[in-house]
Amino acid sequence: MIIMSERIGRYTVKMSNPPVVAGYGSAVGKKESEGPLAEYFDNIFTDTSMGEKTWEAAESDYLNTAVTTALERALTQSGDVDGIFSGDLLDQCIASTFGLKELGAQHIGLFGACSTMALSTALAATCVDGGAMNCAVAATGSHFCSAERQFRFPLEYGGKRTPTSQWTVTGSGALVIKNKGSGAAHINAVTFGRIVDFEITDANNMGAAMAPAACDTLSRFFNDTCASPQDYDMIITGDLGQVGSELMLTLADEKGLDLRRNHHDCGVMIYDLSDKDVAAGGSGCGCSGSVLCSYIMKKFAAGELNKVLFCATGALMSPTSSQQGLTIPGVAHCVEFIR
Amino acid sequence: MIIMSERIGRYTVKMSNPPVVAGYGSAVGKKESEGPLAEYFDNIFTDTSMGEKTWEAAESDYLNTAVTTALERALTQSGDVDGIFSGDLLDQCIASTFGLKELGAQHIGLFGACSTMALSTALAATCVDGGAMNCAVAATGSHFCSAERQFRFPLEYGGKRTPTSQWTVTGSGALVIKNKGSGAAHINAVTFGRIVDFEITDANNMGAAMAPAACDTLSRFFNDTCASPQDYDMIITGDLGQVGSELMLTLADEKGLDLRRNHHDCGVMIYDLSDKDVAAGGSGCGCSGSVLCSYIMKKFAAGELNKVLFCATGALMSPTSSQQGLTIPGVAHCVEFIR
Repeated sequence: MIIMSERIGRYTVKMSNPPVVAGYGSAVGKKESEGPLAEYFDNIFTDTSMGEKTWEAAESDYLNTAVTTALERALTQSGDVDGIFSGDLLDQCIASTFGLKELGAQHIGLFGACSTMALSTALAATCVDGGAMNCAVAATGSHFCSAERQFRFPLEYGGKRTPTSQWTVTGSGALVIKNKGSGAAHINAVTFGRIVDFEITDANNMGAAMAPAACDTLSRFFNDTCASPQDYDMIITGDLGQVGSELMLTLADEKGLDLRRNHHDCGVMIYDLSDKDVAAGGSGCGCSGSVLCSYIMKKFAAGELNKVLFCATGALMSPTSSQQGLTIPGVAHCVEFIR
Repeated sequence: MIIMSERIGRYTVKMSNPPVVAGYGSAVGKKESEGPLAEYFDNIFTDTSMGEKTWEAAESDYLNTAVTTALERALTQSGDVDGIFSGDLLDQCIASTFGLKELGAQHIGLFGACSTMALSTALAATCVDGGAMNCAVAATGSHFCSAERQFRFPLEYGGKRTPTSQWTVTGSGALVIKNKGSGAAHINAVTFGRIVDFEITDANNMGAAMAPAACDTLSRFFNDTCASPQDYDMIITGDLGQVGSELMLTLADEKGLDLRRNHHDCGVMIYDLSDKDVAAGGSGCGCSGSVLCSYIMKKFAAGELNKVLFCATGALMSPTSSQQGLTIPGVAHCVEFIR
């Protein structure tokens, strides 16, 4: 008998036949290659312009490289992909459009800001488990130079960075998710995020804007599954950074959810935080994207991880909403990976 | 025995238990209320500022109104929604974020440009049919004033419009999609779009940019299903307008696919085309969104339609990509509605 995905608790979707991560790939830039995870990235391009005329085109190239690497590792042709789930930070997601159009696959465009790696993975797994697709790709990426000039200041301005600010990762990640076969890990359950607005308005304090959403999604996941944080080798948030992580842990404490023992944050993991430039840590879609699709998947493949909860966080802002003085709502989507 | 969604042909997903459109809602502005479909819209706001300080906030209000109306018609509380699938044209989809955050539902952010009504419906139906959700909302909207100043010229500039240009619809649409119960129509099959680039670069000729994508998706749907265009009461494209519709029909002719007998385009349907302002017709996410969620659903509810193919089209451009001289790739997603 074929069993469908089913809901456990109010919010969480349990896969009936956990889709497999058949391949994964990552590509990063110079600063990321100088951080503690350097050895785990598949592709390092220290010329972050990628030889392109624009930073936006370079961002597309990073994304294309991650997807291509993931497909190669999965021994899969792009013609066999049933859908690519992708999004990015650029206005109207042009990094995804121009980075992926040559692949000729069906394209499911997403916008989840920096939560996109979890959103794309959760939707791809849901579509594979439900029978709509046999092979899907989940991907995202970001670029420091295109993001900085779009959301904050022109690079040439040389604006001073505040201690709570984060450094947008130049990097990308992709997973190939299939309904059968072998791979590094499996996707066992997903919880989609709600929009949570704590009325933060400082575009240099993304961690604080996203922390309440991460706490909301993680607490709903644990309520639904009756699991304990100690059941996981790692509970990983996307890019809260040092400031946002502490806020999230405090909010979780208040709900009686002790995540302190095995919480990690991709924004803290990816850089050497003694580097003053990065301030509170990394951010951007490519932060959790490149960490999940390199370090985490390679540790699964090596048998060093068995169960990981991945909760990527996004700040739902735009240059327009910032200029209009609106708040920065957050969202966080959660994916449970098992061996 | 529970049967999952299954793939027919190479690309198309057939629902195992066609999800039902339990509710639908629409909201439009002044110009739309003067067009031939006026009587079908649920909410007409002739003050297109909605009393807000910004056009972007007004766009959020239109979207919220469509979703709220659809939920009311479905006799459903927002707390019972498992996910809202929504996107819009604004940078980083802020109309969706700020229009929907108060509903407190899980949020799946999409970017499909003007194809969003079909993308959101297709994904929502797939997640409902696959068992991941019991009740999902698909929604989108657009606003002439926010789109015009973002993509083209400030309104105050009073730029002359070219004959191929289209008028962004101020409006929104939403469907409530459930796994059981009764409703106006059912979603029987979906085909996701591929990114198709015919290298159009004129941001005032969206129809030409999107026509090849519509032809690609429709021909893949008909190949997969072995259906005939004559099987449908209507085959509806999103917002090709007059120019793009003729191009799409010509491209389809070349593939031996005769769509001329029952093809309609929301961009042509929504306005009185003798109005010089609208030039080649309507466009924007809210064009196909408001037409599908008003006229089409009401005709289904009245028993006047039995089988409709809805193929919304999107132009994957941004202000940045236009300024950088890039092409405008298109995408089109397709949903088969049955009684």
